[in-house]
Amino acid sequence: MSVKHRWNTVAIVGVGLLGGSLGLALRERELAKNIVGIGRRQATLRKAKERKAVDSITTDLAKGVKDAELIVICTPVEQIVEHVRLAAQSCPEGALITDVGSTKGTIVEALASDLGRGVSFVGSHPLAGSEKAGVEFSRADLFVGRTVVVTPHRHTKADHYAAIASLWESLDARVLRMSAAAHDAAVASTSHVPHLLASALANATPGDLLPLAAGGWLDITRVAAGDAEMWRQILVENRVHVLKSLAKFEKVLTSFRAALEAGDQDRLLSLLEAGKKTRDSVGS
Amino acid sequence: MSVKHRWNTVAIVGVGLLGGSLGLALRERELAKNIVGIGRRQATLRKAKERKAVDSITTDLAKGVKDAELIVICTPVEQIVEHVRLAAQSCPEGALITDVGSTKGTIVEALASDLGRGVSFVGSHPLAGSEKAGVEFSRADLFVGRTVVVTPHRHTKADHYAAIASLWESLDARVLRMSAAAHDAAVASTSHVPHLLASALANATPGDLLPLAAGGWLDITRVAAGDAEMWRQILVENRVHVLKSLAKFEKVLTSFRAALEAGDQDRLLSLLEAGKKTRDSVGS
Repeated sequence: MSVKHRWNTVAIVGVGLLGGSLGLALRERELAKNIVGIGRRQATLRKAKERKAVDSITTDLAKGVKDAELIVICTPVEQIVEHVRLAAQSCPEGALITDVGSTKGTIVEALASDLGRGVSFVGSHPLAGSEKAGVEFSRADLFVGRTVVVTPHRHTKADHYAAIASLWESLDARVLRMSAAAHDAAVASTSHVPHLLASALANATPGDLLPLAAGGWLDITRVAAGDAEMWRQILVENRVHVLKSLAKFEKVLTSFRAALEAGDQDRLLSLLEAGKKTRDSVGS
Repeated sequence: MSVKHRWNTVAIVGVGLLGGSLGLALRERELAKNIVGIGRRQATLRKAKERKAVDSITTDLAKGVKDAELIVICTPVEQIVEHVRLAAQSCPEGALITDVGSTKGTIVEALASDLGRGVSFVGSHPLAGSEKAGVEFSRADLFVGRTVVVTPHRHTKADHYAAIASLWESLDARVLRMSAAAHDAAVASTSHVPHLLASALANATPGDLLPLAAGGWLDITRVAAGDAEMWRQILVENRVHVLKSLAKFEKVLTSFRAALEAGDQDRLLSLLEAGKKTRDSVGS
């Protein structure tokens, strides 16, 4: 483990599940002297302060970041580029900015150019989201044991990458370094297409059959309860990779259908066994 | 609640998760004086006896059922008809037989004719399965709050249906009366197609991306860890309904893909919102 960096002021823009949990985690570990919560809605900000996820709150982004060495943008993916740019104009010289967005390609590409005054952006994606959105579900241990993908771009300085990686490691997350493009291709398969399937299954299930929905159906569709607008943004931002990964899934599904239509029991069994083998190779 | 019926001897054929849990549940509630566990493998039977899921054990079906007023067949779906017929030959006159199979059409149809000597079969399907198979996962409270579908056939006598319904109700399950055909059509949508999707997703996810599989992927694919041979049998037995229900799912998935391909964000949002609404209408 690297030595834990302690920050003077950290600004968190967007205090929902991830932003709130980041504040709680930094406080619990005494990694930040001062945590500023920035958001659009006073009610949410007040909730974050009551939970002690942040020390002070403001709806004014420029004011909120003015003393921050580190700024973490936890807003929906379509707003991240704009919020990074706004923060870069008002933060101290040499400040570091990262985010928690579920897509990285567009964001990292847009922010690869010089932000001015030595301010630097390095993208992050903690794989710690949930269908339960909102600061009321935030937890100091949300990142413990989770994977955080950090996606440097071609101009990222080694010490800036290291600082962001150590931020997540200091919260006991496991950091994976990937290019933004590789990240987006990967999460299309592991997160975005799965979400789409869950939502499609929930859509396809007739309401009058829901009393028969048992453990399997509940597990499979759980993420479909996630915020629809947030997921619209993620799927649209990553649509090229999502469509590619969906085509791959549809090919496998066609194999299952073909085996079932043909009554090819050996083929069906071997497909089920391959799925079981993959699932058994990871945790519960 | 109906008055709880107390049985003298109950025979359980197949002591896995469901059979073992049934034994534990009957014992805990003192609903059976004597519980006989019947199975193929001595090792499994001994485990069931050690867990006190059954009082006595035997690999001889004929011997095991000879004093049983109630026989519950908990073997894989392809064997249920044969095991009911064997049990019917050796059990006392007027005994009641039920099962816990995930498909009902073929089984109920095959057993609708007279079994002789007043012996009667009424099919059951407790929606309480899990990817964790085996008597080691059995629990006395497995059926509490769960739905059990009971599927009488055209010759089922009212008091035989009532006895089987009251068996499950006495274990605090909620009984749904359905025809075998309606049951099979319903669970194709709520259980069998979902299983197929989970398995297909696990199959479609490249192994090198598994370190990026987070909560959503784990939830969605969980059931794919279920016993492959058991699921092959279920999918094959119910293939007509599964293929119909799969076609419906594929149509919805095509809507998602079309919205994404066309960049139709309003359509995509409304699909995600419909999925969320359905998912939100049931428990977590």
